[in-house]
Amino acid sequence: MVEAFDATEIISRKRDFGELSDEQIDWVIDAYTRGVVAEEQMAALAMAILLNGMNRREISRWTTAMIDSGERMSFAGLDAPTADKHSTGGVGDKITLPLAPLVAAFGVAVPQLSGRGLGHTGGTLDKMEAIPGWRAALSNAEIMAQLADVGAVICQAGSGLAPADRKLYALRDVTGTVEAIPLIASSIMSKKIAEGTGALVLDVKVGSGAFMKRLEDAQELARTMVDLGTDAGVNTSALITNMDTPLGLTVGNGLEVRESVEVLAGGGPADVVELTVELARQMLTAAGQPDADPAQALKDGRAMDVWRRMIAAQDGDPDAPLPTAKHTQTLSAPETGVLTRLDAYAVGVAAWRLGAGRAARNEPVQAAAGIELHAKPGDRVAAGEPLLTLHTDTAERMPRAIDALEGAFDISDNSGAAPTPIVIETVKA
Amino acid sequence: MVEAFDATEIISRKRDFGELSDEQIDWVIDAYTRGVVAEEQMAALAMAILLNGMNRREISRWTTAMIDSGERMSFAGLDAPTADKHSTGGVGDKITLPLAPLVAAFGVAVPQLSGRGLGHTGGTLDKMEAIPGWRAALSNAEIMAQLADVGAVICQAGSGLAPADRKLYALRDVTGTVEAIPLIASSIMSKKIAEGTGALVLDVKVGSGAFMKRLEDAQELARTMVDLGTDAGVNTSALITNMDTPLGLTVGNGLEVRESVEVLAGGGPADVVELTVELARQMLTAAGQPDADPAQALKDGRAMDVWRRMIAAQDGDPDAPLPTAKHTQTLSAPETGVLTRLDAYAVGVAAWRLGAGRAARNEPVQAAAGIELHAKPGDRVAAGEPLLTLHTDTAERMPRAIDALEGAFDISDNSGAAPTPIVIETVKA
Repeated sequence: MVEAFDATEIISRKRDFGELSDEQIDWVIDAYTRGVVAEEQMAALAMAILLNGMNRREISRWTTAMIDSGERMSFAGLDAPTADKHSTGGVGDKITLPLAPLVAAFGVAVPQLSGRGLGHTGGTLDKMEAIPGWRAALSNAEIMAQLADVGAVICQAGSGLAPADRKLYALRDVTGTVEAIPLIASSIMSKKIAEGTGALVLDVKVGSGAFMKRLEDAQELARTMVDLGTDAGVNTSALITNMDTPLGLTVGNGLEVRESVEVLAGGGPADVVELTVELARQMLTAAGQPDADPAQALKDGRAMDVWRRMIAAQDGDPDAPLPTAKHTQTLSAPETGVLTRLDAYAVGVAAWRLGAGRAARNEPVQAAAGIELHAKPGDRVAAGEPLLTLHTDTAERMPRAIDALEGAFDISDNSGAAPTPIVIETVKA
Repeated sequence: MVEAFDATEIISRKRDFGELSDEQIDWVIDAYTRGVVAEEQMAALAMAILLNGMNRREISRWTTAMIDSGERMSFAGLDAPTADKHSTGGVGDKITLPLAPLVAAFGVAVPQLSGRGLGHTGGTLDKMEAIPGWRAALSNAEIMAQLADVGAVICQAGSGLAPADRKLYALRDVTGTVEAIPLIASSIMSKKIAEGTGALVLDVKVGSGAFMKRLEDAQELARTMVDLGTDAGVNTSALITNMDTPLGLTVGNGLEVRESVEVLAGGGPADVVELTVELARQMLTAAGQPDADPAQALKDGRAMDVWRRMIAAQDGDPDAPLPTAKHTQTLSAPETGVLTRLDAYAVGVAAWRLGAGRAARNEPVQAAAGIELHAKPGDRVAAGEPLLTLHTDTAERMPRAIDALEGAFDISDNSGAAPTPIVIETVKA
């Protein structure tokens, strides 16, 4: 095969603040996937993109080229409209678990193709695997059958979707180029578009426990992804949501399943319920049901019913007790007052160190490890009362987890500023 | 061995416009040389350095770390002071050939460790190898003996000098990061400092046939290299010289040797003589002889005498006829007037296509291929008179070489602007 372009020429153009042509983008992604463009060449290009940017056309084409590196799924055979949600990742973010069955309860199919966690944020599959018997890997035929039958599926994304992205992500991870907004956006959206969903709601987290620390970065990422989805014909919107403090009162795989089931039973922490309902509303609106009342479907058991059928369809037992940790340790409030800050990142790192997360791909995680919160910012606490309970199966993990919580919270004798609302803003096409 | 740093952290710091610490620089160069820092990581770092820069301390430390990756030579055992010259490369730049024996004629030892050409500019070793019998590869002991005996040596740089630079240069070549001024400067200076010369004069070319097209880039490179040499205790200065048109009247290996011998015989083109004498004056001043008269030593045969001994010491025959090309073709002036422009880059590419240069390392070059100029900018030409003669051993190379010369010159019926002087400015410590 005669190569149409030269990698060095493409790198140099972006280095010199130029725009890449559609043909250059198509070629470089395809040649990288084939191994003709070397890892070091793509690393240099990724750094040039990070520092010099890409415009909307370039990002859109880059995303399409990544989609074209693999297979596309199609839900055209289903009777129902489809809607999907993606979160950029946060601490205690179990929203997918109640959300998928909740939306499916309204007759909208939810194909939630998910991943595992790495670092201080958990992965949806890791959480679901705390449920005895539940299996993450489904064939495309099983996914289609479950969507037709149950309406919701949470499962592992197949390796056939956007293989260029998988290769590029592993490279970015070791070359300081994860932070490039065009590459983050195209990585997420290439998989979501290839997956074939009709509507998509993005939950872009911002704050200490999120990948994006600054609101303007979160806004840029949200805008870029909404544009990409729109350009690809997917009905896309985004919520920018607060991640300065953990979502809900639990962080860790089995603990988060427990809390999700509480929400599906009509209870659960207010912030988790609020965000679940708001995301459901966005998805249902995008799928043609602007008047649906998702809060009601949590209270009346319709969402729980879908959850139970969804778990059972993947060989899980919705009635089996969740695993509990061998060791727990409770940290008490050192003084009386109002909890004004409980840092999401510190809690995420502590849960990770307890065994809830992994430091390298393919490491096992503990189903029962994690942290329970006994108070949230804005709550009054009394000296000596429980503030956090740490859970792990490995006692020697406890001290380093406690270290991570050093300086993680503030207690004040006045009430401080009002807590930031969960949903900061909405980004529409 | 426990690694002190993490490559991704170092890349991220430079990406975020931070300064690298001395320890980070030492570690990353050493770990890259050992293969612990991967090619793709160094590629991302090189792009971040290209786009975000390094300060004087960082560049100086980077250079020292590259020197420390290999051996250092020392000429302390010689009775004579040492002086060396480096050119950033131009078309028809044969100055090293007359310069080394000329400076040595004043009792200053000239250890000219050189390389081969790649692309449109020739390499000193390729030129010297046009001399029948001459050999480029000398041991360190042979270099020392020849310096003591003859006073000048032009030979291949040993592979022991700055091995990190060789590895990094090959990487930069395929990742669009050759153009980073901090990396160009440290690449050149690491080898020159490791070589152990006492004085160094840099010839930084600017113009169409040079690597640097813009004066401000040439100035920045010259200033950076003079600072690096000064920081390392080498008496360093630089000339910024014009490379819009070829130097002298010949381009190509054997053709340039012929012209160099004309200069050593007291003749030769005015621009080659002027630049040779000016560089010699700088080297002799740096070596403690500000009153030396190099122009006189070209006229009275002292420089030629050293040249002949230098060639013979490396098994070359200074009296052997130089190879001549199998095919020549002459291009005539299409009209009468003043030649106002003769583009160095176009002539360089044409000579390269004739076989004088190589497109890939280790390709052979033709000793006799190249181009003779019959006029220089500022000269009057008459329609139908010879303008350029092309030489090659491979007739089928002729048409593409002629293509490269399309639009390469302008003839005007008024005299146009005065030609730019050869030496544009001098940069001192």
